[in-house]
Formats: sequence, structure tokens, C-alpha cells
Amino acid sequence: MTNPTAAMLVIGDEILSGRTRDANMYHLAGQLTEAGIDLTEVRVVSDDAAAIVAAVKALSGSHTHVFTSGGIGPTHDDITADCIAAAFDAHIDVRGDARALLQAHYDKSGQELNSARLRMARIPDGATLIDNPVSIAPGFSLQNVHVMAGVPSVFQAMVASILPTLTGGEPLLSQTLRVVRGEGDIAGPLGEFASRHPDLSVGSYPFQKDGVYGANLVVRGKDAGALDAAMAELTQVFA
Amino acid sequence: MTNPTAAMLVIGDEILSGRTRDANMYHLAGQLTEAGIDLTEVRVVSDDAAAIVAAVKALSGSHTHVFTSGGIGPTHDDITADCIAAAFDAHIDVRGDARALLQAHYDKSGQELNSARLRMARIPDGATLIDNPVSIAPGFSLQNVHVMAGVPSVFQAMVASILPTLTGGEPLLSQTLRVVRGEGDIAGPLGEFASRHPDLSVGSYPFQKDGVYGANLVVRGKDAGALDAAMAELTQVFA
Repeated sequence: MTNPTAAMLVIGDEILSGRTRDANMYHLAGQLTEAGIDLTEVRVVSDDAAAIVAAVKALSGSHTHVFTSGGIGPTHDDITADCIAAAFDAHIDVRGDARALLQAHYDKSGQELNSARLRMARIPDGATLIDNPVSIAPGFSLQNVHVMAGVPSVFQAMVASILPTLTGGEPLLSQTLRVVRGEGDIAGPLGEFASRHPDLSVGSYPFQKDGVYGANLVVRGKDAGALDAAMAELTQVFA
Repeated sequence: MTNPTAAMLVIGDEILSGRTRDANMYHLAGQLTEAGIDLTEVRVVSDDAAAIVAAVKALSGSHTHVFTSGGIGPTHDDITADCIAAAFDAHIDVRGDARALLQAHYDKSGQELNSARLRMARIPDGATLIDNPVSIAPGFSLQNVHVMAGVPSVFQAMVASILPTLTGGEPLLSQTLRVVRGEGDIAGPLGEFASRHPDLSVGSYPFQKDGVYGANLVVRGKDAGALDAAMAELTQVFA
């Protein structure tokens, strides 16, 4: 059985300008691996409607799930919800259920639910809300696209809300052998090892630190027993 | 005058599996911003030939430059050079100039230039080598695609080699105003400010830390004087 696949779409000029180092991709990648959903592509695009719509269409057609991050706040540069609606030809406006969540939240905190904040209740028809225990303004799922906030603490809370509702596959397990030897010396025996284990994915990630060359050899697979046996063999190869 | 545009293609299962947190995207984004080359898209794909070839074709056709990271080492999972050649229908084999660099390096260090290491001299016809002062094995540029290593120290050295050879535009300048107020209160006046300055890009990046809500308001533009004047105005708006 093959696992469901996923793509991620990061929306944000702040990543592309080098202002902010991505954290959400790293978090989601780890969570999906544990859930048995294979993340096979990530795209980062700027706050540009045409670019967002094109990426949503391309990715939603080729993956089981698409997860987006960023652009659902109250400011003028938050255009993600409208772009998702446009990608699916869905009508979008302030929706009663989202508005009620925000109203209760701002009533409690004594803040005004002004027109800017109301933008966060713009939800496409047919979408399901994603719970946001951190700051209330919800994300949403429309068809196979799950739309979440860019602030890492909120993004992580939304991932925790949505992931348990999705059908995962077998978690991809991985084990690592650190070999302090040049990758050029490792490559031959490692390639032969990989050929002997077509059901496992075998990667070599070189490092150099303080003049020492080496590589982390990472073996990934879904069968824990086969992985253990292969790692024992690999340890022998590089003993 | 508009700046040249760039896309980045990160090749690596280690990012998609959540094993490694990206560093190269963050580095390149900052360098390109300083050079006046607008990074408008990043894609991360796995070590899969079809995915790499398709991404190279799509990105090289729509951007002035494409920068790739990863997959040019000596091991079986290093398939980037062959994929770049395939994307441009270029012939690829061990090339004399790259081989000579490696031979001199390994002669000096007393290591063998074995068949695995020779893979790093596989360079497509028509490509120009990119200098690698860290570990010698070169990157290369083929047409508008610049192919670099994934190890961050080597990637950064290659970026330093290639960037001065490219024609940049006007550096994108940015200034930030930190406002400790909910984004929902900021949004209205900020949107009006953005409308008054169509030549500037205005972004709001919310944060919440220890129960305090606020946003970093980032204004970007190429004219230092206009940027200074706009920031003075923005500071007044949120005084």
C-alpha cells in the first residue's frame, strides 16, 4: 500500500526576501513523516494572487493533500483565503460560524471586531473550519487544501488540529549511521548496499566540521524489522 | 527598470522528511536581496529524476536565473547533474577540466580518485564550472541554471563564487517598524498607508510572545530617500 502524498505551499515575501528563516516547513515535514503522509514537494511563493492561485491548482491536482502557511491575517497583504476560493471557483464572504468565534473572542477581551478583524472570518463556501486554540481566528479546509496561519505557534496548533482527522499511512521509519570517512570512499559500498535493498530508501548526507569529513547514512523504510536487519548489515559494511 | 528574477530549487529528501531544517534557502534569499535579484519562487523536490527535470524546465523558462542546491556529490543518490543535462538535452560525461581539478586535489591529499569521486566531474557539455574553494568538486552553470552543492558551507562558497558574475539590479532595501498592538488594530491605518505608497511593498508580520501581541511592519523599496520619508510617516501613524 502506498502512503497518501502531500505538498506544502508557503506564502510569504518574508521568506523570499531572506528576512525570516522558515520554521513551518520543518515542523510540518516532521509531523507528516510520523503520520505516514509523504511530503513530496514544497513551494514558496510571494504575496501575489496569480502565483498563489496557480500553485494551489497545480499542487491540489497532483497530491492527496496540500497544506498552506501564511496570509490569513487581518492586514491588506493577507490574500490567501480569497486566492484559495478563486482557485476552486468558490464564493467567499464573511461566514457566520467564523464570525461567531471571533465575536465571542473579542467580546471577552474587550476589543472591537472591526472590519480588519472581520476579514479573518472570510471563509469560502463549502470549507470546514480548522480549530485555532492559540488566537481563535480559524484556518479552513477546502477540498484537499488545508489553509493555516504563518505565525509558527498558530501554524503548529492548526497542524495539531487537522492532522488527526486525516487518514495516514504507515509511518516512514529512519535510522542513521554516522561514518567518519570521505563520501568518495563511502559511495561504492553504499551504492551496492542500496541496490541490495530496493525496498529501502538510502541517502548519504555529507558533513565537514573542523576539517573532519564524513557522512550521515540514512536508511528509511516502513518495516521496522527489515530496517533493523539492514542497519546491522550497513554497520558491518563500514566497520 | 525591473530587477532580474530568480527561483531556487532545493533537491533533497532530507528536507522533505523533516530530518534537516533548511539553511541554504535562507542564505541565498538574503544574498539575492542584497544583489538586487528578486527571488520570487522556491521549490523543494525529492531525489526523484522526473520531479527534478520537470521543476528545472518550469523554473528556467520563467525566471532570469535558477539556483539549485543538493545532489552533486559522489553517492548513488546524487543525480542532479544528470537531471540538469536531461532538462536541456545536453550530453553529459566526465569532463577534463573538472577531472583535472579533482585529480590535483586528491593527489595532494593522498586519496584515490576512484569511480565514485569521478562522478563529481560529470559536467554537461556547454556548462561553465563554479569554483568550490571549500572541497574543490565544482558546481556548474548551464544556460540560466546554477547548480550548487547542498552542504551549507560549500553552498555558501559557491554562491560567493557565482553571484559577482551575475548582473544584478537595484538592491531591495527594507526598514522595519515594530508595533506592539494587535494586528487587527494595525490593519486599517496600515492598509491606507500602503495605498498611499504604491511604489513600496508593505508587509505585516505578526508575532505573539509571552502574551504580548504585535507586528513587525516591513516596508521595502529601492529608493532610499522615499523609504526614509515613508518610514517617518509610518512612525507618525502608529505613534
